[in-house]
Amino acid sequence: MKKLFANRVLNNDTSDLDEIFKNSANPENISFAGGFPDQHLFPDNDLKQAYRDAIEHDGQGIFQYSSTQGLLALRQKIADRMLTHADVQVSADNVMMTQGGQQAIDLVAKLLLNHGDAMVVEGPTYMGALAAFDTYEPTYYEIPVDDNGMNIRQLRKTLKAHPEIKLIYTIPDFHNPTGTTMSSKRRQALVSLANQYDVIILEDSPYRDLRYSGQNIPAIKHYDTEGRVIFISSFSKILSPALRTGWIVADDTIMHELIGLKSAIDVQSPNVTLAAINSYLDSHDIDEHIATISASYQIKRDAMLTALDQYFPQNVHYTRPNGGFFIWVTLPEGVDAKDLLNDVVLPQAHVAYVPAACQFASRKVKNGFRLNFTNLDTATITEGIERLGHILQPAPMIVPATSFAPQF
Amino acid sequence: MKKLFANRVLNNDTSDLDEIFKNSANPENISFAGGFPDQHLFPDNDLKQAYRDAIEHDGQGIFQYSSTQGLLALRQKIADRMLTHADVQVSADNVMMTQGGQQAIDLVAKLLLNHGDAMVVEGPTYMGALAAFDTYEPTYYEIPVDDNGMNIRQLRKTLKAHPEIKLIYTIPDFHNPTGTTMSSKRRQALVSLANQYDVIILEDSPYRDLRYSGQNIPAIKHYDTEGRVIFISSFSKILSPALRTGWIVADDTIMHELIGLKSAIDVQSPNVTLAAINSYLDSHDIDEHIATISASYQIKRDAMLTALDQYFPQNVHYTRPNGGFFIWVTLPEGVDAKDLLNDVVLPQAHVAYVPAACQFASRKVKNGFRLNFTNLDTATITEGIERLGHILQPAPMIVPATSFAPQF
Repeated sequence: MKKLFANRVLNNDTSDLDEIFKNSANPENISFAGGFPDQHLFPDNDLKQAYRDAIEHDGQGIFQYSSTQGLLALRQKIADRMLTHADVQVSADNVMMTQGGQQAIDLVAKLLLNHGDAMVVEGPTYMGALAAFDTYEPTYYEIPVDDNGMNIRQLRKTLKAHPEIKLIYTIPDFHNPTGTTMSSKRRQALVSLANQYDVIILEDSPYRDLRYSGQNIPAIKHYDTEGRVIFISSFSKILSPALRTGWIVADDTIMHELIGLKSAIDVQSPNVTLAAINSYLDSHDIDEHIATISASYQIKRDAMLTALDQYFPQNVHYTRPNGGFFIWVTLPEGVDAKDLLNDVVLPQAHVAYVPAACQFASRKVKNGFRLNFTNLDTATITEGIERLGHILQPAPMIVPATSFAPQF
Repeated sequence: MKKLFANRVLNNDTSDLDEIFKNSANPENISFAGGFPDQHLFPDNDLKQAYRDAIEHDGQGIFQYSSTQGLLALRQKIADRMLTHADVQVSADNVMMTQGGQQAIDLVAKLLLNHGDAMVVEGPTYMGALAAFDTYEPTYYEIPVDDNGMNIRQLRKTLKAHPEIKLIYTIPDFHNPTGTTMSSKRRQALVSLANQYDVIILEDSPYRDLRYSGQNIPAIKHYDTEGRVIFISSFSKILSPALRTGWIVADDTIMHELIGLKSAIDVQSPNVTLAAINSYLDSHDIDEHIATISASYQIKRDAMLTALDQYFPQNVHYTRPNGGFFIWVTLPEGVDAKDLLNDVVLPQAHVAYVPAACQFASRKVKNGFRLNFTNLDTATITEGIERLGHILQPAPMIVPATSFAPQF
């Protein structure tokens, strides 16, 4: 008997996620699990008009094959935006359009990772990134995240001990899943370490423009002196995820190979979609739209924090993000958030969250979970957190917090 | 110094293709190189309306995350179409939407191929498929194609000698690049061999509906008795390539893993596009549209064959396809079509084609080239073939055809 599937498929276990999203889809549950934007904020009429304008403007030509890198006019707008919104000076030649940020992650993994190659991920990190990396079968080194982002002291130790590390994956702005932001001091230290140890940094920043408090910090790419930072972002969180449109910013040598890889993966991104987004940006001020959704998300974040303050017990800790989509909850040590979800939270409180383990490459940390606050109204957020709080009140299934050390 | 790129990137040499498409884009040249549909046939107004209808019908919900497998209503229509157009009975659960046929090829390669795994490709074959497979670093076995498709006798020998072969990639209908179609007898023999040797067949059929003469033949998947045929196709050639929408049909076990892989690659295909295509199919008879474009492509094919009959010398052979996009030309042995292109055809005749070598996994066959007939008007086709014919007239650079054996 031949083995049907490649080894990488065995690494691609999405059963945890399948279950999470099944629970989310059940209308009986209040789900904080998904990372969905609020669909009531999508500018559907503006986008409808943008599709119409783009097709009328370009005619039949819009439906033909075009370039793998993607529509130049849109790449130019993104290059301009990289300067105004991320302090990164870049030409349109160094921007490529991708199928959401997810494809950008997959492309970089495909570009860099041989089987067994060493890479750094944050602990916890975006589970979709782990799913993408897993299929390239890397060796992970996990660096903890705190309120100021990745722990640089720990990173330095790890790079020193494992100089073969090729890639550091980080979500510096309103991190998924913790909501925390890397300080500018750490960004600079991170670039220095990457230079010293000859490492590529993959800076994944889909939430960057969704800041509800505090001051903007330049992107890690801003501090890049040797072309070793690859920056990726997307329209998913600021416009619509169903457009599946992200972008990747990289220096010439890397960009050249990324274009070749994308060409072999899906030829190019859909020109109709790119032209429609370009047309939307021509006719509308997307920063006004972002201000509108940010105002709404700020209210939701505040509602969730207020409910957490009110209903969660003292021995449960949570982050207070300045933007993005998520709050991270740390339970007392010894509590397995996944067991808690399946045994108590779902059946009794009918609330869903994403338990810690599947957000750690090591799968070893279990006493935490991710809460999304963008996709529910404030009353439902409060109701859900109240229900969850009742479950978490010190009780037999919660181990006493004697050995508790907060992760953030 | 660490090696920056993964080994697979070294296999992904697209420089030949880059050059080809640069030559195609030069307006001084008559290019038969690209595999482009005729953009004057794109139903731009109908598609504009389809986007509008879909967005108006679904409202803001159309812009939210949806399922990785893709819009159910569209998958149902494709399942129905598989029965009427390919004699394949399949449920919507066994259909997944992809970013064009190209992503479907990449997904299947990612699913099945470990580094060094053995697979069969046709010689010649679709160069984009080779680009996708190359990044998984397989061991290729090349089986020649003739007027009735893949040489099954040769395949049987190869499978017997290399029972480790896992995958056979074939383009049975109006093959890219030769235009030939696999006979039903060979399709049945192919499935028998796959059963006997425990091999998966990847049936790539983007041109299937574009038949200009002869009778339809059931898909290879029609003869599948053990769930080992994966069928892929796309809307690129029958509607528009800029929609980047294809599909993959596979049995349950394989489909389950393909969904997991796609989720890790790009989460899902753009729901707006899928809903627009679904809306187009609701409001229009796509088979009427296909009849319209087929009538036009038939005239172009005939114009090219007439010109080839008139202007090409006796020692140059070419296929007479019943459909699709391409005609394959076989030059006398010893002639290198790539050298001929760069040294004579481009500089003197200002005509472009795709030379043989990059369409063979072995890169060893050089005396042939691919001609596309769909993307030019008939006068330009005739003009280009006449110019090419003058170059090919027996002359010093053509080796006398003493040892000539036609490949088709």
